[in-house]
Amino acid sequence: MRVRHVDGQFLIRLEAEEEAIATLRAWATEQRVGFAVFWAIGAMRRATLGYFDTTAALYRQIPVEEQVEVLSITGNVALGEDGAPIVHAHAILGRADGSLVGGHLIEGWVFPMLEVVVRVFPEPVYRRADPTTGLTLWDL
Amino acid sequence: MRVRHVDGQFLIRLEAEEEAIATLRAWATEQRVGFAVFWAIGAMRRATLGYFDTTAALYRQIPVEEQVEVLSITGNVALGEDGAPIVHAHAILGRADGSLVGGHLIEGWVFPMLEVVVRVFPEPVYRRADPTTGLTLWDL
Amino acid sequence: MRVRHVDGQFLIRLEAEEEAIATLRAWATEQRVGFAVFWAIGAMRRATLGYFDTTAALYRQIPVEEQVEVLSITGNVALGEDGAPIVHAHAILGRADGSLVGGHLIEGWVFPMLEVVVRVFPEPVYRRADPTTGLTLWDL
Repeated sequence: MRVRHVDGQFLIRLEAEEEAIATLRAWATEQRVGFAVFWAIGAMRRATLGYFDTTAALYRQIPVEEQVEVLSITGNVALGEDGAPIVHAHAILGRADGSLVGGHLIEGWVFPMLEVVVRVFPEPVYRRADPTTGLTLWDL
Repeated sequence: MRVRHVDGQFLIRLEAEEEAIATLRAWATEQRVGFAVFWAIGAMRRATLGYFDTTAALYRQIPVEEQVEVLSITGNVALGEDGAPIVHAHAILGRADGSLVGGHLIEGWVFPMLEVVVRVFPEPVYRRADPTTGLTLWDL
Repeated sequence: MRVRHVDGQFLIRLEAEEEAIATLRAWATEQRVGFAVFWAIGAMRRATLGYFDTTAALYRQIPVEEQVEVLSITGNVALGEDGAPIVHAHAILGRADGSLVGGHLIEGWVFPMLEVVVRVFPEPVYRRADPTTGLTLWDL
């Protein structure tokens, strides 16, 4: 991971074999990020995506076991009730034939690189557990 | 709908059963937004997408009648010739098996939530009807 | 191409028959852009996408020979070792039936228009050739 702070934003280059969600969470913890939004493009060699089953109130896993282009990651970092950052990101991945697969990004193994642009906000947003949906929602 | 204004941007949490386009249009009208760009992730239980048929100069409708992850919405708000805000957004939606469907977002029924980040600009952009294309285009 | 500079960002409307990558590169050269990030939605009548084959260390081409909605373009402009801007963008395109195709955007012919939002940064980012991956990577 390489990081540069430019004009109120962070440019992050994730490198081969880094797991995107855990790496961004660790960075957000270290930087004491209270709220941020981010976008990324690049490539991964493996990922686990999720689809939220609203009846069961849990994420069904969608394994992606091949080298894919990361065509879009849109996400944000907010704080859990314990104050630790939660990375919420949705990903769209492209296969060699141009076909796509996408979902909630549970984990994604970068290869060879991922270009991330992060805008950190000066005040935190917390997520609160919502019993109705089974999700943790932005507490605005 | 819940809204927080942070550092020149608006965080909006749309809630179950809100229709995304109409809700954002109503908010933009109330806030007197002259131009804004936005991004969103979350989930919907139903949507109508559009594909612009350039020969007929109209949108063909693509109905989505299932619970989907909202993997990407990219959009903007500009003003029509009557001064009312026009929300223009493109959406990419993910099904339970990770397959995708996408198009111009005509309407989308949020469930259980949609996280929207909006950047409002200090001066308006108008859309003008363009007889060649049949679209209303940014008047820059 | 029409451009307006608003509040530190550039709104660009690409028009029918403009090729997106070359047009943005020419604009970035003229504006002496050292680093920028951008997003776009609109439509194209033809595109060439790429998938990076990590074994061969080259992009495999994916031709798109039909009118498509541009559902998402996420990209950035950085400088090559020769100081000329390199436009790196990933695109997700939608067909008439709502099915999608996506990849690294090698070229895309706009029709009838593409709405681009660009944020230019006040300091440059260079790309350096990386012998391990065969790519040019952000030098952060």
